[in-house]
Amino acid sequence: MKKNVAVLGATGAVGQEMMKVLYERHFPIGELRPLASANSVGRELAFGPDKVKVQEATKDAFKGIDIVLGAAENDIAMAFAPAIKESGAVFVDNSSAFRLDPSVPLIIPEINAGDAKNHQGVIANPNCSTIVTLMALYNIHKLSPIQTLVASTYQAVSGAGANGPKELMAEVDALSKGEAFEPKVFQYQIAYNLIPQIGGFTDNGYTTEEMKMQNEGRKILHAPELLVSCTCVRVPVIRSHSISATFVTKDQLSIEQVQQAVRTAPGCRLVDDPASKRYPMPLETSDQDLVFVGRIRRDLTNPNGISLWCCGDQVRKGAATNAVQIAELL
Amino acid sequence: MKKNVAVLGATGAVGQEMMKVLYERHFPIGELRPLASANSVGRELAFGPDKVKVQEATKDAFKGIDIVLGAAENDIAMAFAPAIKESGAVFVDNSSAFRLDPSVPLIIPEINAGDAKNHQGVIANPNCSTIVTLMALYNIHKLSPIQTLVASTYQAVSGAGANGPKELMAEVDALSKGEAFEPKVFQYQIAYNLIPQIGGFTDNGYTTEEMKMQNEGRKILHAPELLVSCTCVRVPVIRSHSISATFVTKDQLSIEQVQQAVRTAPGCRLVDDPASKRYPMPLETSDQDLVFVGRIRRDLTNPNGISLWCCGDQVRKGAATNAVQIAELL
Repeated sequence: MKKNVAVLGATGAVGQEMMKVLYERHFPIGELRPLASANSVGRELAFGPDKVKVQEATKDAFKGIDIVLGAAENDIAMAFAPAIKESGAVFVDNSSAFRLDPSVPLIIPEINAGDAKNHQGVIANPNCSTIVTLMALYNIHKLSPIQTLVASTYQAVSGAGANGPKELMAEVDALSKGEAFEPKVFQYQIAYNLIPQIGGFTDNGYTTEEMKMQNEGRKILHAPELLVSCTCVRVPVIRSHSISATFVTKDQLSIEQVQQAVRTAPGCRLVDDPASKRYPMPLETSDQDLVFVGRIRRDLTNPNGISLWCCGDQVRKGAATNAVQIAELL
Repeated sequence: MKKNVAVLGATGAVGQEMMKVLYERHFPIGELRPLASANSVGRELAFGPDKVKVQEATKDAFKGIDIVLGAAENDIAMAFAPAIKESGAVFVDNSSAFRLDPSVPLIIPEINAGDAKNHQGVIANPNCSTIVTLMALYNIHKLSPIQTLVASTYQAVSGAGANGPKELMAEVDALSKGEAFEPKVFQYQIAYNLIPQIGGFTDNGYTTEEMKMQNEGRKILHAPELLVSCTCVRVPVIRSHSISATFVTKDQLSIEQVQQAVRTAPGCRLVDDPASKRYPMPLETSDQDLVFVGRIRRDLTNPNGISLWCCGDQVRKGAATNAVQIAELL
């Protein structure tokens, strides 16, 4: 019953979190093989109380492996996919390289686990903001299909990888000393600032990150007609993404129906008690797997509309935990 | 031609900024009388190169004054309004106490300066997020009336007064030393966090701050049917508010028409060149009066919809500058 698991891009933020989640969830591991570029070979990474040594990611590195968890960028994922397939392993990939490929299931286990059965060697892990948002919405979508969604994101610096939080903290430190700081990870200073660009720009004026919410949302929810307008903004928060979502359902739902849908949605926690100042906040959702949902209220611009606010840890449910959950389906 | 001006609540962030703006704009001042509570009496405040001494705000403090700029909370504004009226001065008030009073004009000079003529002794200065958003939208609204608006705000800590930035910086400092910090100004830690509550909650699940965008927007734009769904979020930014706005106009406008409307709108600057990574950011809009507008693109959920992103200094155009501009109308 045990599986041999490789983590491709093991030294990154998501790769290390995947190993943490594998251990926490008691994944039945035979061999764990962390893979990274040549200059990380021999580096020891934590796996529970143990240490495992990083091996070089080469085309021959997947022999004997059952599942490869991909935590690398698109180019690395594409470069190694053929070798992974040839080795007979299933590639659960967190990059965006294969997400919209019709032959590749795109999975949030709570929503469309059934789609994973049709894989042909690759299963894609969705975009982090898309995961957090759809986790909040899918049980509502089951009550009455969501027709349109307007979303504004508040995305943590961890979304840029392990160097994102490092740059934010280094900037805060430099500013406190009155020293100059040249941003490398982000386009501009992110400390005490907001950057309304994540990813590159496409022809329609949206960024690649913004279009993922519609493109991936349609595939995951089996809703090819879903219309989404998204604005993605980087904020000086360490780790959890937050989303302000206003959506219109086919039929009018009551606030109580929507709250009940969220309350009973696996992987969600309803945190919606404004009178007691209880609502989701990124600080409270970091380092755990639940997506917190609150501020549920009638959209004042549409009788069938609802507005809500949700937060989730983008490194965990937004990436590593979701990937390990997919591996558990196999 | 010179006017005697009092600033009520002169020691606060907005009060001090009002004095700075009065000086910068060469407002024709006879006497400048900074007023505050008894425990600030005698404190010296900067007015250009000069210093002026704070006097106590009492009912007799407005004698001989032509214009009172109000930078105090609602209760103070309401307590002194009758005495100000009796003194014959015009009260330009930044609190929300009188904004929706039908006998009180609510003015953004670039938009509805004409309404100021009908004042009966009090003119209200709108909410800061509302000012920044409407500044971005009003010239578009003139092209074709805005029917609905979905807005998510990213509001700086300066919106909570002079103690907001102090608390953020003290929190960042305490966290860097591993020390505990008890928030007083904000409901929760704001450093590296987001708080989706500004103001108290109303019966419909929206906060008082969120409802201002619709209520004040209708009055300022003379658009009683305007529908607005707003989500207001406090972010760890020092001074400028940012808004992600998606709105539907009566007729379909082209992106070029919208860009041209913003480009020619007094008080706005079009910053919309994604290919060169140029878009509005709060860091760049602080300590000046223009509202920056960019990321203009088609709303993908509605053929008559447009999405944009705007930023403006909430202490200046969002409060002090707008109030001084109103005084200039008088």
